[in-house]
Amino acid sequence: MAAQKSAQSAPSVQSAPDSTRRSERSRRAIYDAALALVAEVGYPRTTIEGIAARAGVGKQTIYRWWPSKADVLMEAFLDLAEQAAQEAGQEPYVIPDTGDLEADLKAVLRLTVDQLKDPRFAAPSRALAAEGLVNEQLGREYVAKLLEPSLQLYVDRLRSAQEAGQVRPDLDPRIALELFVSPLAQRWLQHTGPISYEYTDTLVDYALHGLAPR
Amino acid sequence: MAAQKSAQSAPSVQSAPDSTRRSERSRRAIYDAALALVAEVGYPRTTIEGIAARAGVGKQTIYRWWPSKADVLMEAFLDLAEQAAQEAGQEPYVIPDTGDLEADLKAVLRLTVDQLKDPRFAAPSRALAAEGLVNEQLGREYVAKLLEPSLQLYVDRLRSAQEAGQVRPDLDPRIALELFVSPLAQRWLQHTGPISYEYTDTLVDYALHGLAPR
Repeated sequence: MAAQKSAQSAPSVQSAPDSTRRSERSRRAIYDAALALVAEVGYPRTTIEGIAARAGVGKQTIYRWWPSKADVLMEAFLDLAEQAAQEAGQEPYVIPDTGDLEADLKAVLRLTVDQLKDPRFAAPSRALAAEGLVNEQLGREYVAKLLEPSLQLYVDRLRSAQEAGQVRPDLDPRIALELFVSPLAQRWLQHTGPISYEYTDTLVDYALHGLAPR
Repeated sequence: MAAQKSAQSAPSVQSAPDSTRRSERSRRAIYDAALALVAEVGYPRTTIEGIAARAGVGKQTIYRWWPSKADVLMEAFLDLAEQAAQEAGQEPYVIPDTGDLEADLKAVLRLTVDQLKDPRFAAPSRALAAEGLVNEQLGREYVAKLLEPSLQLYVDRLRSAQEAGQVRPDLDPRIALELFVSPLAQRWLQHTGPISYEYTDTLVDYALHGLAPR
């Protein structure tokens, strides 16, 4: 969740410097407006018109860059994750590989805790996830564009740990990652329990070493 | 999720047989109407009036038994879980304790898979969960009345396994259960992957024995 794929279809920045700067300002205003609106009124009542009005741009500007409100929102989230990583002084879309799996997983999950507690992220993200639960098409797009790319980073990290002999070679990494990622996601989404560094550290301990005595 | 607490405030059945039968019929009609409505129009647009009209009862009948639409829905779900357990020939609200933790967890999670794939349960449950994501009060009620009581059954089962030496004595059972319950919940809620007996069996294996080599 902390780590996500970079935006694929950001607006072109190949025009003249002035227009580039203006585009960049508009793009940021559109992202901010989209995230604020979806948090305030929910996904169904968020419209391209509403985003345009709030961002102070014409709606044709939005349609020129994105085919739908879902696409605007997906990229707004990717951009947000990128900003958050930069502010934290981290490489975005990366899980560290120091050779110590336990330490690396604890570090990236602590970053995710910070992100989940960031109010800029929490309200719009919850609104999008909620809509994804009942709107199957949006849900699948949300998973494909935002969630799954970040989970694949864990797959890669676990594969490298398998090669290093730190994870059993017969495990499916795509399932294994869920032992520590899904509990955090459920606590955050459904308010089923508090979220802290201690909690995510514990998840990593339990998942790596198992519940049964060794 | 498969196992849930029994309804606390079901309508009284101490009146005369005829009125009892009539009450029971009304109660069932109200539950069915509430679940169908929330699945079709979502939680915000589900009303006591709408439930009453669809169930063919006066809205005073509903208000006599339940203070709010949230309460009707919570009990409708508890009733549904009870019915499903009966149909499967299982004791409702129980996790088996045969002395074999691994077998017991696999059995109860397979039952949960069946329940999650049951269309009577899936659509209304998803609608309620979605609303719980953005409506914090409803979310907390959903967790307190439906989710947490069923999770406490896992806590009890894990404690008994700790006493039997099958789970490390220093683990917090309330966190430990999330290693196999939350992945299933997330796949189901967010469509992040397929759900099957093989999948839940794998979760139990990974959680009990850990990802690191033994």
